[in-house]
Amino acid sequence: MLRENNAGVTLAKGFKASGIKAGIKKSGKDDLAIIYSEVPATVAGVFTQNLVAAAPVWVSKAVAQNGVGQAIVANAGCANACTGEIGFANAKKMAELTAKELNVNAEEVFVASTGVIGVNLPMDKVESGIKKAATALDDNGSIAAGKAIMTTDTYPKACSFTFEIGGKKVNIGGIAKGSGMIHPNMATMLCFVTTDVAISHDLLQQALAKVVTTSFNMVSVDGDTSTNDMVLVMANGMAENVMITTEDADYDAFLAALNTVCTELAKLVARDGEGATKFLEVNVKGAESFEDAKKIAMSIAKSPLVKTACFGQDPNWGRIICAAGYAGAKMVPEKTVVSLGDIVVYDQGLGAEFDEDALRDVMAEHDITINLDLHLGEENATVWTCDFSYEYVKINGEYHT
Amino acid sequence: MLRENNAGVTLAKGFKASGIKAGIKKSGKDDLAIIYSEVPATVAGVFTQNLVAAAPVWVSKAVAQNGVGQAIVANAGCANACTGEIGFANAKKMAELTAKELNVNAEEVFVASTGVIGVNLPMDKVESGIKKAATALDDNGSIAAGKAIMTTDTYPKACSFTFEIGGKKVNIGGIAKGSGMIHPNMATMLCFVTTDVAISHDLLQQALAKVVTTSFNMVSVDGDTSTNDMVLVMANGMAENVMITTEDADYDAFLAALNTVCTELAKLVARDGEGATKFLEVNVKGAESFEDAKKIAMSIAKSPLVKTACFGQDPNWGRIICAAGYAGAKMVPEKTVVSLGDIVVYDQGLGAEFDEDALRDVMAEHDITINLDLHLGEENATVWTCDFSYEYVKINGEYHT
Repeated sequence: MLRENNAGVTLAKGFKASGIKAGIKKSGKDDLAIIYSEVPATVAGVFTQNLVAAAPVWVSKAVAQNGVGQAIVANAGCANACTGEIGFANAKKMAELTAKELNVNAEEVFVASTGVIGVNLPMDKVESGIKKAATALDDNGSIAAGKAIMTTDTYPKACSFTFEIGGKKVNIGGIAKGSGMIHPNMATMLCFVTTDVAISHDLLQQALAKVVTTSFNMVSVDGDTSTNDMVLVMANGMAENVMITTEDADYDAFLAALNTVCTELAKLVARDGEGATKFLEVNVKGAESFEDAKKIAMSIAKSPLVKTACFGQDPNWGRIICAAGYAGAKMVPEKTVVSLGDIVVYDQGLGAEFDEDALRDVMAEHDITINLDLHLGEENATVWTCDFSYEYVKINGEYHT
Repeated sequence: MLRENNAGVTLAKGFKASGIKAGIKKSGKDDLAIIYSEVPATVAGVFTQNLVAAAPVWVSKAVAQNGVGQAIVANAGCANACTGEIGFANAKKMAELTAKELNVNAEEVFVASTGVIGVNLPMDKVESGIKKAATALDDNGSIAAGKAIMTTDTYPKACSFTFEIGGKKVNIGGIAKGSGMIHPNMATMLCFVTTDVAISHDLLQQALAKVVTTSFNMVSVDGDTSTNDMVLVMANGMAENVMITTEDADYDAFLAALNTVCTELAKLVARDGEGATKFLEVNVKGAESFEDAKKIAMSIAKSPLVKTACFGQDPNWGRIICAAGYAGAKMVPEKTVVSLGDIVVYDQGLGAEFDEDALRDVMAEHDITINLDLHLGEENATVWTCDFSYEYVKINGEYHT
């Protein structure tokens, strides 16, 4: 189903994007992106729940609430967080400058920032950067935009595909950045999704809120929830399907498509976590509730002991069952079965007998699946994360001021 | 006030201890300890809340509940966790073997284990080890006992001192081990406290429960709560003070003494966390409730980004205020003041101006204090932790099977 991944946010009709060098990043890499819809789009957003939310979060929340948007302007290299009134004025100014260049309303421009906390945006560079980015807008600009929002990401993250609603071809795609401060309730995680579907604002917001619960909110890199996270969706209706206004089959088809894009991007974020050498999927099934399943999966995914064990390719099931036991969710050790890949390692309260060579092969893979069956109920949850390596310590332990 | 730290669990009258090599640890280091009171003591205990609790936890809980104990037998090198019925039988057998050697009741012997999960105790070695340890009991045996319970600890942890109750000299002291899987609600954390105070069982248990809340439960090394944690207290009454049976001034004096010992040992556990190069104290004051203060302090102490920043001597206040913001507790960014040592780094929602050289000196110290004043109320909390270093990844990422 997935195709044309490189098309990202420019697969859907009427969307252009660009990414350029404004000079905000010290490294001199691209650091400012614009995504633009030819026509005003229905929009929705979900935002960090961190009480220390950055200025652009407040600006973008207002756009999402209004429900109409035509552009996203995003910068890397400076989070514009903990910057007080100046920061808020700068975020609004970014929207105004972008609106002027694109000849749209400033109230219809989302603003997103990622990077260092506590530093003011260099507005002269931002201003000339926005002009440059507006000129550079391109039907194939998604990759450039994806690169310009990277921080410690090692590659740009994109995904897009086409599906059908009522006989009409509908396109959807997105770009994301992640890497550090990645944890549920959003992270230094930016994700922008564009689609040409026609849908009402209420249902778009509802679909996004639902999908985030099982995609981005199921990713943990380091347990840190950032000040700047947001997932934005713009739906400009140019697919010309009959407007989706109720929870019918068309809505379900769109929900599935949005879920595919968000899940794919969320997994890419976990896969490219800071210093990652392994991609870990933690599946918990047989829980009494989704909340219990999620608590246990997240407890395992966050455990530094489990994550360092995976880095060392150590099938240390003791650390896994231990993390399950302190998750604060209902589980009965004697009923729980733990597998690494397909190999059962813990059963009936005891370590299981297993083929050591086969298990060694499982742990040597880049992608490792940790499975728990609680045998208590019908609910499941899956969390994605990565291992904890020397490189994570190096990336975050270096003094950058 | 603290003195004779080396006396540890053998400062109080009537207590002897020993630590010997039973052959359980692969390294060949000492791995079995006994602590013995000449007369039956009033006892209390607090235990891991991990649902995957090890066999010795169940055995020792029963002793604590009975309220009378005369000995503790503890081994390192094997946690006797996830070992099912065999593990439970082995834990009981340890109590019986110890009781026989010491000529006491098996129901009055605490059992503690720490080490690898999912492996059965080598009972032949345990049996001969218990005989050896019983013979080796000594008035100055605390250091030997402290060494024999170490796992990845780099030094034995002990503390003891003398105070007065009603004109009588009362002694109290303890030993502890920590290092990995260290997080509130106990950790692979064992702590044994002995005192010659005379106190009722109810008040001893009450005092211990209260003290643990602000000492051991305020330590985090890696956020992992172990299967085997316990803090045990034995009070044998040989100080001949008037038995403490109500919450009077004598009780307060004992509570303060117990708090001093437990806090001192808890800080030693944080200081010697796996791979630690820094000791971090996080003080949160001005909270509306202790729970809020604790949530914020713990959120900062657990943040891998804060911990790696401290490893890198980076005064990254953005990560600190960010971790405070996602703690799930009430805080208002604009009212919060963050200091590193005495230097204010964040105030009124913004980074503060500070002397960079002075701040560099603060971060270069081994002990770093992170202070937050929320300016919302009167409640405080202090959490102790350590930094996250390459060495933590090395210790836990090596494949040991």
